[in-house]
Amino acid sequence: MADYKITLLKGDGIGPEIVNQAVKVLDCAAEKFGFGVTYDEALLGGCAIDATGVPLPDETVAKCKASDSVLLGAVGGPKWDSQPGNNRPEAGLLGIRGALGLFANLRPSVIFGPLKSASPIKDEIIGGNLDVMIVRELTGGIYFGERGRKEVNGQPAAWDTEMYTVGEVERIAKVAFDLAMKRNKKLTSVDKANVLESSRLWRETVKRVAEDYPEVELNHMYVDNCAMQLVRNPRQFDVILTSNIFGDILSDEASMIAGSIGMLASASLSGSKLGLYEPIHGSAPDIAGQNIANPLATILSVAMMLRYSLDQSEAADAIEAAVAKVLETYRTPDIYEEGFTKVGCDEMGDRVCEAL
Amino acid sequence: MADYKITLLKGDGIGPEIVNQAVKVLDCAAEKFGFGVTYDEALLGGCAIDATGVPLPDETVAKCKASDSVLLGAVGGPKWDSQPGNNRPEAGLLGIRGALGLFANLRPSVIFGPLKSASPIKDEIIGGNLDVMIVRELTGGIYFGERGRKEVNGQPAAWDTEMYTVGEVERIAKVAFDLAMKRNKKLTSVDKANVLESSRLWRETVKRVAEDYPEVELNHMYVDNCAMQLVRNPRQFDVILTSNIFGDILSDEASMIAGSIGMLASASLSGSKLGLYEPIHGSAPDIAGQNIANPLATILSVAMMLRYSLDQSEAADAIEAAVAKVLETYRTPDIYEEGFTKVGCDEMGDRVCEAL
Ligand SMILES: CC(C)[C@H](C(=O)O)[C@@H](O)C(=O)O
Ligand SMILES: CC(C)[C@H](C(=O)O)[C@@H](O)C(=O)O
Repeated sequence: MADYKITLLKGDGIGPEIVNQAVKVLDCAAEKFGFGVTYDEALLGGCAIDATGVPLPDETVAKCKASDSVLLGAVGGPKWDSQPGNNRPEAGLLGIRGALGLFANLRPSVIFGPLKSASPIKDEIIGGNLDVMIVRELTGGIYFGERGRKEVNGQPAAWDTEMYTVGEVERIAKVAFDLAMKRNKKLTSVDKANVLESSRLWRETVKRVAEDYPEVELNHMYVDNCAMQLVRNPRQFDVILTSNIFGDILSDEASMIAGSIGMLASASLSGSKLGLYEPIHGSAPDIAGQNIANPLATILSVAMMLRYSLDQSEAADAIEAAVAKVLETYRTPDIYEEGFTKVGCDEMGDRVCEAL
Repeated sequence: MADYKITLLKGDGIGPEIVNQAVKVLDCAAEKFGFGVTYDEALLGGCAIDATGVPLPDETVAKCKASDSVLLGAVGGPKWDSQPGNNRPEAGLLGIRGALGLFANLRPSVIFGPLKSASPIKDEIIGGNLDVMIVRELTGGIYFGERGRKEVNGQPAAWDTEMYTVGEVERIAKVAFDLAMKRNKKLTSVDKANVLESSRLWRETVKRVAEDYPEVELNHMYVDNCAMQLVRNPRQFDVILTSNIFGDILSDEASMIAGSIGMLASASLSGSKLGLYEPIHGSAPDIAGQNIANPLATILSVAMMLRYSLDQSEAADAIEAAVAKVLETYRTPDIYEEGFTKVGCDEMGDRVCEAL
């Protein structure tokens, strides 16, 4: 029997309560599909600053590296806003991405049938459904480039560097093309090649990688146009491939278009099986500890983990189906509509286990 | 009698036909409000490449500098896609922005009453109307920073530099605060200060400038969150202040949310009265020369010119009112709806003159 070691980074705010529900569901899936899971916890973000002084203790990196996969709740909160830039909860998040080599961030923007009305976009534009996968480069670009302060003409100035090597673009492009092959074989690569040199290298490299994927229909789009097209006609997209900073912006926009920010999962993958899985929403400190947070994005992150890191795609499908089923009857406050039964964080986890 | 010298940069694609209609309307306004206008034409973009080999001939810069204001149609098209990066029509656009010191780009996203249904966003979110002003820094940041290619660990790589000085941030922040004072006194400064050093300098500087504007309510928002909030609840914004690259992305997103891309004007201002005015839409080579393009964004750009560069705000108001009136009856194909009268580019210009 397969036995997986999972590191839990519960993090801050609602992190602990949503991760607890996801663990509950993963345990149910393990029993049902006949595999074992053992857990270890480690500190990341604000809770790590409080306990150790730094947002990413070495011990956390070591534990994550020694596990089959990592499940993250959420990090950050106003409590740590006064920390210097390099010692904020967010620095821990960037640090763990870098330390584990998680260069591929997969952010699906999907609309769950019963939640269709939650999208701010008109029904005739959203149509029957929406299923866009954003592949964001996660360990390069301006997030990891050199930066600093200097004097320019006697004035204080600050600078950051956007930089990509051919190898970095190649490996993320391959991830996107491979995904497109398993989906609708359409890939949109997003850049600003009419201005940026790094975008021109990006575009050349993506074109070269495309030669190995003749079945995939590739097009290139400027980032400003993509931000527009996501609003105008999001259904034109299947897989979107883009850089770290553009992916940050576009994936948040796309998730809001899907309308259910409390429902969306993400996967951050390295070259090996080790991945980090987390909901795309934040730590929502204002509602922490009240048992009203929506654990479904974290539960769906567990489904992504089963699919991409643990080779248990049957269990992944089953969790996704269970979530869809539960949504027909039960809702946490953030997605509550008349006619449904309102439940808390805890009970939502129970209902998904039941449906499993 | 005031006599203004206007340089026309008709540009490519539909540029010439829409500028011609805007000139027609400006002439009507001049007669009605008692001022004179003389025009001079110069080349920019693809037409300049064809005629002179470069997208921004020196003569164009000289003519623009010698005038009271510049009206631009649109530049670019697939015809010049194979030009090297530094000799494309877009390079001419960046060049003229730099040469004239047009550091402040004002992009209003408004919904024109009769066009409300054109927004892709649900009516209950858009509400009665929408009126967001995006102030984008236009001559700094990653657009004008150093860039190049190099080897990194034996691999080809490309890089661009995002850089801001305190002075650059101060002057654009002042423009935004001054505008907010004339509007609803709410300013949202957008950055990525949790990652970028240039954003941290941006935020510190905006906070300092804010001390001179105690009446303006200032808040700071991360760019990814802003991309989300524009979809979720665009009415929360009054004036948005942001960098060159973030402004490029967010203003296109916001204009699509307003729904009428063929209707939106923009102003690019320098420290002096000299400004450049242009529609935000592109050169649409596919419909060029067919007399079906919508000239209203260019006509509304003339209104902005009258307001910001020529101190003729009465004439500006009159043109905007004329456009609103004409929209109650007449529509170009891009904004046509049943029950209205379809007109071409030319006739739309005539109708606005009539309404004036
Ligand atoms: C918290 C922040 C540093 C982070 C990012 O920008 O990558 C977040 O916005 C995300 O998208 O995961
Ligand atoms: C054409 C391009 C270089 C330009 C820009 O990015 O500034 C355009 O998108 C704009 O916003 O005016």
